[in-house]
Amino acid sequence: MFTVIGERINTTRKPVRQAVEARDAAFIQADVKRQQDAGAHYIDVNAGARVGREREDMEWLLDVIQEEVSIPLCLDSPDPRVLEAAYERVERPPLINSISLEKERLNNLIPFLRGKDCGVVALCMDDSGLPKDADEVLDRARQLVEKLEGIGMPRHRIYIDPLVQPVSTRTEHGPQAITAVRKIMTELEGVHTVCGLSNVSFGLPKRRAVNRAFLSLMMAAGLDAAILDPLDASLMATLITSNMLLGRDEYCMDYIDAVRDGRIAD
Amino acid sequence: MFTVIGERINTTRKPVRQAVEARDAAFIQADVKRQQDAGAHYIDVNAGARVGREREDMEWLLDVIQEEVSIPLCLDSPDPRVLEAAYERVERPPLINSISLEKERLNNLIPFLRGKDCGVVALCMDDSGLPKDADEVLDRARQLVEKLEGIGMPRHRIYIDPLVQPVSTRTEHGPQAITAVRKIMTELEGVHTVCGLSNVSFGLPKRRAVNRAFLSLMMAAGLDAAILDPLDASLMATLITSNMLLGRDEYCMDYIDAVRDGRIAD
Repeated sequence: MFTVIGERINTTRKPVRQAVEARDAAFIQADVKRQQDAGAHYIDVNAGARVGREREDMEWLLDVIQEEVSIPLCLDSPDPRVLEAAYERVERPPLINSISLEKERLNNLIPFLRGKDCGVVALCMDDSGLPKDADEVLDRARQLVEKLEGIGMPRHRIYIDPLVQPVSTRTEHGPQAITAVRKIMTELEGVHTVCGLSNVSFGLPKRRAVNRAFLSLMMAAGLDAAILDPLDASLMATLITSNMLLGRDEYCMDYIDAVRDGRIAD
Repeated sequence: MFTVIGERINTTRKPVRQAVEARDAAFIQADVKRQQDAGAHYIDVNAGARVGREREDMEWLLDVIQEEVSIPLCLDSPDPRVLEAAYERVERPPLINSISLEKERLNNLIPFLRGKDCGVVALCMDDSGLPKDADEVLDRARQLVEKLEGIGMPRHRIYIDPLVQPVSTRTEHGPQAITAVRKIMTELEGVHTVCGLSNVSFGLPKRRAVNRAFLSLMMAAGLDAAILDPLDASLMATLITSNMLLGRDEYCMDYIDAVRDGRIAD
């Protein structure tokens, strides 16, 4: 099973920001309904763009979204007060997006997470910045798991994000992410790995083609969750097809269903 | 570097068989020119369809093809007499497709290969049939490498084929091939791995979508050669993109060239 976290409800995207400003519930609801129908398992909700209004925007979004869809939410904020308010408002156990090893973030989020009924996205970031190679990613993943297990969070609720960096800035960024996922899934048995898929293609033309191939490569390495646009039909086709080829689609039933629905292009 | 072996010149394909029967050199030459232009590194040549005429058809094909293109050939026959005649006729060191552990084939091919200036595709097949799991593939790969090293063939000229079987007949066939490639590339350092890519999608609709995703998954596991149709533009786009993401395309130059030439669809 691969977990799809739909990335579209993010106020840094202009149409979403405008809908939030105008309190246009119909726009938001139509979008999340489409994400759910396309196969999203979680809807990521990021209300961070309007300074000083994150909490009220987040609360409005949560109410509007939960009126429309039944899948759980991924609460996307660095601010523990916003997360606390959001957590109180959700109807199903959410994912918290995200904790990291940055001192301030860690110190804020650990008390928040203690005893909560949720999963958590854990970024392999610390105060020295982005990880330089796959071994550094693994080392940070270990530290994150240790901190989270220390407050009683079981591994199956931890989603390690190796922090995908663009291949346009350094050729090694692709293999670094792929190798990091393989190491994490081997060495830290029981955790999940997740990433923001489209970071890899930043700065390149035809980004969707890059995202698609990267999804298969990361899945081969063990990635079992991604923050992505479920309305990218060719990306979802790649996901369904790769899932089958990795042995997770008994009798190819999901694949054949997708072909019947016209979701797989030749 | 990933090696593309163009699969189109095979007399089991009806238009090719007709062209061979009619001695239509222009048809064959147009096809191989397109394969070379699309990025093939070798042209596979299989003249096995017309019983009793394999040798003369093969010789005619080799002459016609070598008049047109400058890339080396992959001589595809189980018959050592046909291979011997073909080997005498090629202008550049070929790949021999293929040896296996089947007693008769092995006993025929080992004397043929001794001292020859060529690479060889080595199938993980023996007289008991197809391999049942990835460990059996690895075990057979080891035996093949031992036999071939025994006649002085260096590992970098050996292309192990794990024998890809259709996922439509058994869900495990996908992961079996992927795991086998990873094991071979780890345990038998220095060899290449190759496969007939489209076997995996046999019996399924929208086969090209399956072949594309499988190519990325196999490349993530270490596959560094494939027998495929280089005129499948979306497959070649996946190849170029995956190659970049695996760190083998400095400054993304091949990818950006491909975008400029219109070879990458969004």
